Amino acid sequence: MNTADLGLPVTVPSTALFTDRYELTMLQGALRSGTADRRCVFEVFTRRLPEGRRYGVLAGTGRVLDAVENFRFDSGVLGFLADQRIVDEATLEWLADYRFRGDIWGYPEGEVYFPGSPLMRVEGTFAEAVLLETVILSILNHDSAVAAAASRMAVAAGDRPLIEMGARRTHELAAVAAARAAYVGGFTSTSDLAAGFRYNIPTVGTSAHAFTLLHDTERDAFTAQVDSLGAGTTLLVDTYDVAEAVRMAVEVAGPGLGAVRIDSGDLLLLAHRVRQQLDELGAKDTRIVVTSDLDEYAIASLAAAPVDAYGVGTQLVTGSGHPTCSMVYKLVARAEGPGADAPLVPVAKKSMGGKASLGGRKWAARRVDADGVAEAEVVGTGEVPADLVDRQLLVPLVRGGEVVAREPLDAPRDRHRAARAALPMSATQLSRGEPVLPTHYLP
Amino acid sequence: MNTADLGLPVTVPSTALFTDRYELTMLQGALRSGTADRRCVFEVFTRRLPEGRRYGVLAGTGRVLDAVENFRFDSGVLGFLADQRIVDEATLEWLADYRFRGDIWGYPEGEVYFPGSPLMRVEGTFAEAVLLETVILSILNHDSAVAAAASRMAVAAGDRPLIEMGARRTHELAAVAAARAAYVGGFTSTSDLAAGFRYNIPTVGTSAHAFTLLHDTERDAFTAQVDSLGAGTTLLVDTYDVAEAVRMAVEVAGPGLGAVRIDSGDLLLLAHRVRQQLDELGAKDTRIVVTSDLDEYAIASLAAAPVDAYGVGTQLVTGSGHPTCSMVYKLVARAEGPGADAPLVPVAKKSMGGKASLGGRKWAARRVDADGVAEAEVVGTGEVPADLVDRQLLVPLVRGGEVVAREPLDAPRDRHRAARAALPMSATQLSRGEPVLPTHYLP
Repeated sequence: MNTADLGLPVTVPSTALFTDRYELTMLQGALRSGTADRRCVFEVFTRRLPEGRRYGVLAGTGRVLDAVENFRFDSGVLGFLADQRIVDEATLEWLADYRFRGDIWGYPEGEVYFPGSPLMRVEGTFAEAVLLETVILSILNHDSAVAAAASRMAVAAGDRPLIEMGARRTHELAAVAAARAAYVGGFTSTSDLAAGFRYNIPTVGTSAHAFTLLHDTERDAFTAQVDSLGAGTTLLVDTYDVAEAVRMAVEVAGPGLGAVRIDSGDLLLLAHRVRQQLDELGAKDTRIVVTSDLDEYAIASLAAAPVDAYGVGTQLVTGSGHPTCSMVYKLVARAEGPGADAPLVPVAKKSMGGKASLGGRKWAARRVDADGVAEAEVVGTGEVPADLVDRQLLVPLVRGGEVVAREPLDAPRDRHRAARAALPMSATQLSRGEPVLPTHYLP
Repeated sequence: MNTADLGLPVTVPSTALFTDRYELTMLQGALRSGTADRRCVFEVFTRRLPEGRRYGVLAGTGRVLDAVENFRFDSGVLGFLADQRIVDEATLEWLADYRFRGDIWGYPEGEVYFPGSPLMRVEGTFAEAVLLETVILSILNHDSAVAAAASRMAVAAGDRPLIEMGARRTHELAAVAAARAAYVGGFTSTSDLAAGFRYNIPTVGTSAHAFTLLHDTERDAFTAQVDSLGAGTTLLVDTYDVAEAVRMAVEVAGPGLGAVRIDSGDLLLLAHRVRQQLDELGAKDTRIVVTSDLDEYAIASLAAAPVDAYGVGTQLVTGSGHPTCSMVYKLVARAEGPGADAPLVPVAKKSMGGKASLGGRKWAARRVDADGVAEAEVVGTGEVPADLVDRQLLVPLVRGGEVVAREPLDAPRDRHRAARAALPMSATQLSRGEPVLPTHYLP
């Protein structure tokens, strides 16, 4: 594959410019000082979950692998760096041959996580690993924020389908990644055609208020839609009067009408009224879809209402109050000198101010109780205790520069459902609380 | 130009898939019912500003123009729509010839706005105009959210430069658009190389904690950086002990050291201490850059501190608590029948539930008082009052499908500063309040 994952079959020279300038100036400095080849371990982790959240959801790993594979400096990119005098000649030459040749380990996509979980571990020379900071963090911070919101909404929705329809509320390509992350978190389908194209996520959608307003009467609009899409379609019934629209919808489409959609008003009240009216009209199998400013709390509040599907936009793509994660990419260990055999020493920022972190190359495992329920996230830098060897969380993603962990998108989706199901029951409470698992550090 | 604006010189088949499926099914229904050719007016507006905000900032217009120009259905896109049976054969044939041939008017980019401001007006047949809903909203909702946050931060920063450094906190391409919107809102530079490449925004950056930790000592790291980037560089001084690092920084670089960066801790306290220390060391021109989790309030709280520049990440690219705007794209008028001469009738959703809107094709003007200070946003559907004719806000952007309003990025940046300066003084209070201008509707 020669294209970066931009959510469309897009040819880009590379992902190498999704980079903060300081990564290149650090590279130049290290090439000059002779430290560029020191073997290094960088780790991605977060110091905390968003306030009140019980667990995080890792998403975007698959996109990271594409981005790393396409991280190359072609002549267009090098010309820009030269023109702008961002780095010197020696650095440009080094970049021209760049490809990542190191190893990446990480939590598999869809896995849950907690403060301190080493979500991704990048090992290589300083020069090759330092360059990946921004692109890795961009992808994981964005996609994981959406997946976490999606997971909470999926819990609230239970077995009812969830439609992602937030494209209009976020950047046009962030929308494609958001639809992907929502699918990982448990959503069923998307309104976004680009996401359908790129990721094969099922797409849905029938009509907006504009379609009703375009026609001389609501009846004309319903007739036009049923003529075009069949009686199994979803008619939007809240342009004028909901009760009148429901009556007309069944009259036009017959009792085999697929669904009606309510996009405004008191959804709880309307769902009950519309259900009763549909039943009385003999449209007992006609479904009710609701789509008005929903979040996980609104979805939960409709659990007892006769609602058959939820469409969610703004709150999903903006992470339901937390549009980004606070993942960081930190140097945790580096060789004492050049060469592949130089011993690694743990390193960490030491100054005061809340940004200190734990040095050393880490493993992680999830400890479970006798019933198989997770009870702690265990993170360590030494030997893995025997009882945790089989419960380790990091898996190889890239070996010697080659991606070794591609998988279809249903894999992280299934993995997430299973991982969430293995958490203590309080994980799926929507109320604010502490992370549902403590993180235990073993030296 | 044949590429969509993806923030890189990226060739895409088109922007036509940044579309919600229902736009295509509405098109199909309208083609069948004979209403597809009715002349229509769609408008972009918002019913409210984010809670407590005094004004909105329109950004993304330039990107919308690129997106509209590249909205074409090539064979790859049509094949996808056919394979997925999203639309029928007649609709596919219609789409193959699609390009937007209508007119678009709008507030010029960088302008401020208020609830009900008709920010963009798209006029054409229903078929051609309905398709643009999602891509227009994606761009304007995202970019305007970032620009609004940037504008508040620029007010708080006064004459001090602002560095955009949020790429790692948002989707990798949203980051490029965010850097652009931040520049419109008043930022000075960006850390994001892709934004520098695509938009010629000045890029900055020198080093992270990893560079210090890579070296055996902090002195080695500083020496390496100064050797590489010169004494005018910015040294990061909070990896270990700040006072010790500042002392060593001046020792290594000399009193001509360009700047020091503080990225953690009590910035107010540290800025004063570091300034005093630098002055005592004779480094009176060495600047102080602060970069730790800043938002407009934190920036304002440092107004009296000896800080020379601010770097802002998370809170900027996530809109400082409001990561999206609530702009909608609504059909407000349509012809009574086919043909270019059929009279327009105003239309609007009528049902209860807070989503009702005002029908009719609108103009807007900003009324000013005798001193030239803005006092009201006036929006109407009839004739423009004589005293407002020269104060109209909408300008032609696209005429008969041709973009007529391209401009360099400094134009919206300058325009924003001027528009903000013409608002009442309370506009630039950071405290929560009502929109600083009322919106008056004239029938």
